[in-house]
Amino acid sequence: MARIALDAMGGDHAPQAPVAGALDALAELDASHTVQLVGQRASIEAELDRLGRSSDTLRKRLETVDAPDVIEMNEKPTAVRGKPNSSMMVGLRLQADGKSDAFVSAGNTGAQMAASMLLLRLHPGLKRPAIATIFPTAKLPVVVLDSGANVDCSAEELVQFARVGAVYAEDILGRSNPAVGLLSIGEEPEKGNTVTKETHALLVESGLNFLGNCEGRDLPAGTCHYGDLDVVVCDGFVGNVILKFYEAVAPLMIRMLAKEGMQEQTIRSALRQLDYSEHGGAPLLGVKGVSIICHGRSSPRAIKNAIKIAVQAVESRMNDHIGRRLERSASGAA
Amino acid sequence: MARIALDAMGGDHAPQAPVAGALDALAELDASHTVQLVGQRASIEAELDRLGRSSDTLRKRLETVDAPDVIEMNEKPTAVRGKPNSSMMVGLRLQADGKSDAFVSAGNTGAQMAASMLLLRLHPGLKRPAIATIFPTAKLPVVVLDSGANVDCSAEELVQFARVGAVYAEDILGRSNPAVGLLSIGEEPEKGNTVTKETHALLVESGLNFLGNCEGRDLPAGTCHYGDLDVVVCDGFVGNVILKFYEAVAPLMIRMLAKEGMQEQTIRSALRQLDYSEHGGAPLLGVKGVSIICHGRSSPRAIKNAIKIAVQAVESRMNDHIGRRLERSASGAA
Repeated sequence: MARIALDAMGGDHAPQAPVAGALDALAELDASHTVQLVGQRASIEAELDRLGRSSDTLRKRLETVDAPDVIEMNEKPTAVRGKPNSSMMVGLRLQADGKSDAFVSAGNTGAQMAASMLLLRLHPGLKRPAIATIFPTAKLPVVVLDSGANVDCSAEELVQFARVGAVYAEDILGRSNPAVGLLSIGEEPEKGNTVTKETHALLVESGLNFLGNCEGRDLPAGTCHYGDLDVVVCDGFVGNVILKFYEAVAPLMIRMLAKEGMQEQTIRSALRQLDYSEHGGAPLLGVKGVSIICHGRSSPRAIKNAIKIAVQAVESRMNDHIGRRLERSASGAA
Repeated sequence: MARIALDAMGGDHAPQAPVAGALDALAELDASHTVQLVGQRASIEAELDRLGRSSDTLRKRLETVDAPDVIEMNEKPTAVRGKPNSSMMVGLRLQADGKSDAFVSAGNTGAQMAASMLLLRLHPGLKRPAIATIFPTAKLPVVVLDSGANVDCSAEELVQFARVGAVYAEDILGRSNPAVGLLSIGEEPEKGNTVTKETHALLVESGLNFLGNCEGRDLPAGTCHYGDLDVVVCDGFVGNVILKFYEAVAPLMIRMLAKEGMQEQTIRSALRQLDYSEHGGAPLLGVKGVSIICHGRSSPRAIKNAIKIAVQAVESRMNDHIGRRLERSASGAA
């Protein structure tokens, strides 16, 4: 049983996409799970009425929590302090108060990070949370982190990303003893920038299943010189550049192929494995709780998948496992 | 009239690919241009005999320069000092001695950089050269640098990359007043890591046609929030990761589409604009001369295109323009 708070006002297509995504998720999830739609009550109810397709049974698993304020997409992260009654803050406060188990938003990413750190707080020993994104590959999907929360990272921070990313790969992707790769510019340990080389040395001693360096070409492949990848660690600058690049390449190719007369539907279907909406949201790892970040452009389908990830995170007790993993590492074990 | 020295022993398919690429280039180039095949004479001549398809007219524009040693792909860059008679060193020495105008190799990249710095030397004021790679985009191709020569870069170095990259875009791609973007994780000047933010401030004052920050998604698009891109600046760590990622994504998608029954030939033809062999080699910018780096896996077609880029670099006097641009910037102008 998981209670998922959803930011009904977050994202480019709010409240339509979140509300529709919530209904789709409830229809597919086990009946013990509920969704809390957080936002301007009137807008949410108007949207529910407009959709009008939900059964009473579904409606019973849907609660509306009023939050009069909205944090806009272009506001600074610090805006959360001035808007305690925004959907972002109200939704996360439910969790901090024990009235909800997870929070999902397609709103302002910086604000969601700030609000999550403020209300959920970080696990001891962490300085910053990391955004863990699922990259579709030719093999199994790979967890890449950090994909944008931290731009200048120390080697110690990158090792912590590896630890929390490994728990995510275990709990959400079901990988046992996840294989960790360090993104660099050559497979040899001596290749890379200063921080990467330091990180390599620390990862060797970390007790994690560290394979070694992987390269840009190994990401779409899902495998590197040393074996198949479950987790890839990099700083949030590189991770964000690669993520946005990846998201843009597939649509570009689809347009080029369609221009030559191929059926767009056939192409999309062949490349569906690469569709990021399939994987929904990216959890903010390191906060004491569950906070899932969705793309601003999220469709109902992406929101639905993010809610499912939130349920998995709650049911697998991912957050407890992250806490324990970090405690163990602080005491010298893996 | 350009004399292009080609490393006949460099790359995964040497000497076959370089020798075939040289003949193909000569067949397409104006008759005033010549190629110097540098390497083990016996191997080169055996390969020329095996191909046997070249006319006497072509052969007259082809000279063989003996170099008994070979630098292997896995040797350290410092190996060049111990192998003064390697094809890499002999080929570059021809240029240093005024007997050749450009050098092209698909061999060991680190060794080519070391040998180029040793024999051609750097323009005054530069600490390191940069590898400038052409990225195919949905619009015009974009010059991305550095794509792997420098992993930890200062803001001053990134600005120098912008200057030499702009000359390359003018002289080789024919862009007037090239538009420069700085790769970051958001379009706003305050987005990015510490070095990127410092670089942004310096580029605004640089006298270059600096557009502002661009993001990962803008690379395949060829355009950013501020306009179409000619040059994108980043450090060699990010540039190398993105380049290798880009090279791997297209083949992955082609395999996925082919698996669903689409004709591989049709797909390749639709995506030919994204084929890196179309763009051949990546010049090492900043050395006093012309040194073109090719992919180790280069096909004859990639070698042919790299030779053509070398000819363009010589004919446009790119190297002189780079020297002058750097002198002007040192004296306070753009």
